[in-house]
Amino acid sequence: MQDFDLPRRLVAEGLGTLLLVATVVGSGIMAETLTKDVALALLGNTLPTGAILVVLITVLGPISGAHFNPAVTLVFMFRGALRPPHAAQYVVAQVLGGILGAVVAHAMFGLPLMEFSSKARTGFPQWLAEAVAAFGLVATILGGLRFREAAVPWLVGLYITAAYWFTASTSFANPAVAIARSFTNTFSGIRPQDLPGFIVAEMFGAFVALAVMTWLLRGAEPKAEAIR
Amino acid sequence: MQDFDLPRRLVAEGLGTLLLVATVVGSGIMAETLTKDVALALLGNTLPTGAILVVLITVLGPISGAHFNPAVTLVFMFRGALRPPHAAQYVVAQVLGGILGAVVAHAMFGLPLMEFSSKARTGFPQWLAEAVAAFGLVATILGGLRFREAAVPWLVGLYITAAYWFTASTSFANPAVAIARSFTNTFSGIRPQDLPGFIVAEMFGAFVALAVMTWLLRGAEPKAEAIR
Amino acid sequence: MQDFDLPRRLVAEGLGTLLLVATVVGSGIMAETLTKDVALALLGNTLPTGAILVVLITVLGPISGAHFNPAVTLVFMFRGALRPPHAAQYVVAQVLGGILGAVVAHAMFGLPLMEFSSKARTGFPQWLAEAVAAFGLVATILGGLRFREAAVPWLVGLYITAAYWFTASTSFANPAVAIARSFTNTFSGIRPQDLPGFIVAEMFGAFVALAVMTWLLRGAEPKAEAIR
Amino acid sequence: MQDFDLPRRLVAEGLGTLLLVATVVGSGIMAETLTKDVALALLGNTLPTGAILVVLITVLGPISGAHFNPAVTLVFMFRGALRPPHAAQYVVAQVLGGILGAVVAHAMFGLPLMEFSSKARTGFPQWLAEAVAAFGLVATILGGLRFREAAVPWLVGLYITAAYWFTASTSFANPAVAIARSFTNTFSGIRPQDLPGFIVAEMFGAFVALAVMTWLLRGAEPKAEAIR
Repeated sequence: MQDFDLPRRLVAEGLGTLLLVATVVGSGIMAETLTKDVALALLGNTLPTGAILVVLITVLGPISGAHFNPAVTLVFMFRGALRPPHAAQYVVAQVLGGILGAVVAHAMFGLPLMEFSSKARTGFPQWLAEAVAAFGLVATILGGLRFREAAVPWLVGLYITAAYWFTASTSFANPAVAIARSFTNTFSGIRPQDLPGFIVAEMFGAFVALAVMTWLLRGAEPKAEAIR
Repeated sequence: MQDFDLPRRLVAEGLGTLLLVATVVGSGIMAETLTKDVALALLGNTLPTGAILVVLITVLGPISGAHFNPAVTLVFMFRGALRPPHAAQYVVAQVLGGILGAVVAHAMFGLPLMEFSSKARTGFPQWLAEAVAAFGLVATILGGLRFREAAVPWLVGLYITAAYWFTASTSFANPAVAIARSFTNTFSGIRPQDLPGFIVAEMFGAFVALAVMTWLLRGAEPKAEAIR
Repeated sequence: MQDFDLPRRLVAEGLGTLLLVATVVGSGIMAETLTKDVALALLGNTLPTGAILVVLITVLGPISGAHFNPAVTLVFMFRGALRPPHAAQYVVAQVLGGILGAVVAHAMFGLPLMEFSSKARTGFPQWLAEAVAAFGLVATILGGLRFREAAVPWLVGLYITAAYWFTASTSFANPAVAIARSFTNTFSGIRPQDLPGFIVAEMFGAFVALAVMTWLLRGAEPKAEAIR
Repeated sequence: MQDFDLPRRLVAEGLGTLLLVATVVGSGIMAETLTKDVALALLGNTLPTGAILVVLITVLGPISGAHFNPAVTLVFMFRGALRPPHAAQYVVAQVLGGILGAVVAHAMFGLPLMEFSSKARTGFPQWLAEAVAAFGLVATILGGLRFREAAVPWLVGLYITAAYWFTASTSFANPAVAIARSFTNTFSGIRPQDLPGFIVAEMFGAFVALAVMTWLLRGAEPKAEAIR
């Protein structure tokens, strides 16, 4: 990762979040246009999102780490893998990329380029769901990096595939994506006023995962580090 | 596996079973809420379960073995991989984790935290289905460990994806998960009084698989053990 | 493969074909019971079949080669990988295992253990579809073995996932499975009188693939054999 | 790749594109025949296409590079991996193979072997969608080849699975496949008069991806080339 200069890393974060949000929003529009069955629409939203995550993390991960997610970036900053000023720029790239992704999705489907969502997503169950979703995402990443780094793109794609369905909030688990989704009044949207609750819950879940997994994974050293 | 101390291994078993049951129960609630087509609901239950199994076994397997299943734990105990007192603690962690998983799923969907299922799942065909399901699961694990250990998370996820559909019982194949599912009166529930039949059938299938696979795999030694 | 004695190899072929047919027939019963949408039922039949193929070929392949299919066995016999008397016993194990798989599926779903299908599958388009299906299957296996042996279980599972939909016959592509499917009067059945057309078409497609791929793959030697 | 002579490479391109188009067109016919829900039909079109891409690229990639796509072939020609006369022959093989694939699909489903599509796919949003689709495809291929060559078949299959849903055009992203799809008046067709707009958009997206990824990936050399 250190082999790529900061501009490239920021472009990778921005481009990846753009394509991720374009997939989430675009497939949501496609799905709700084609069917009245909401479970089927959610399936048409889930599979593309899971699939594109595997692709984006594989292809952009070696450049920037492929966070596409401020919660993940902050976790890595706390672990010392990223300096605070770089982390801040990562977050800006993610948020801007995400919003641009919603715009691109709208343009492809001939919708107004920006609109505010009117979809209510609030209340304790939703916040708990987001905390669980982000907990699971960060636990998946930290555990995957520890034991099977090459599988991380797959693990994240599969985790989100599952979390779309088992969390009541369909697992945003990502503040940058949540912000971007407030700019679309389609299947995958969220009202701007509901963003703070989601973002706080996601950050909470991410840092609980950091604490739990730091303890859990400290049980033994990986073989490569066995000699101390 | 021996590199992690017992508390961490038990937490891994409990946390893994918690997230597994939260996925099974949560995605079942999501699915039956969104559609009236039961096949589609089952699909919305199947895909997340298969996906999360790949994730959980990859991430927690190196810590505890990622059994999440008393039938699997007993099979490994009989093979000498786990001492009986440890196996007993594994089972307790799995059952408690599983029940907590149902509670978490209910909380995320704003349902009463605990409720008893009223869904009848009994009779010889159901028991046969559970025996077949557990047979296949244990055969998959033992064969996978023998020939392609790194693929075991995928094999278990794919096996359960298939077994949800080809067994008439939708393949519980796991006494801890079955117990946890008796505490939810939603899509994936099972009446408490139907648990004994399921658990006996699962144990029967698991031990038939142990016997059959022990014979079948004894045909040759893996290359790493070729010199004796 | 040669490391396992013939009885174990035959049991592996029989058990694998049993579980394959139990999956095909069982998931078909489950699917048509749960929905009236035939595309959804086909999806509920496709995903389990693709998934179980990855599992069965990974777990049983090192024992017997995991043919589960007389057309595949004959192709390997013609390539010299299997002696004719062994091939004959493979085919017997496959056919018996397959029929037993249909019986097990029926028992799990509380249906009469055996019944003849009344589902017509005949005519030139269907035969062409079976020839194409078997051509693709054998081409997948031969190309996979040549270039990426470890991926063959995945390649076969994915190929059949695709072929269920792009061939008009839903891709039986397997004489043993076809025979077994004549013993179920459910979603996945085929009338006994339609078997000869299917089997001839499958054999034709398989041997066309053997010819084409033998020519196509002869272009270069794999690196391991680069020194001549 | 250079190990295989040109005839074999051209046959691999033609056969691969044939099977790809047979899958796209055939699964589209199957899907629209079986259901009235268009989202479900699209799902029945998406999964087989993604699955067969993994298979075809794995099995034929080592022979010809498995482009199956004139836009990809031109990108590789511009990168110097393919000489112009060879590239031209690749394109001819792809177009002929693709058309033959539509014919085979029609024959399997008992339809007239060739027919012109009457399905309108035109206008700026559709062209933008095709440009995005081809951008993403080429970016996936170039990034995949750079960082994880063995995963390219999977990355392409997963990318197309996502792009079917997030692009408004269902992601043709391939001039040869687009031409072939103008010869079928079924689910996956496109009016002949709409081809030029699609092809121009695809080429535009492909070359934007070439430019962006060439810059993005120049940040560092892969470890194998670290010593200069």
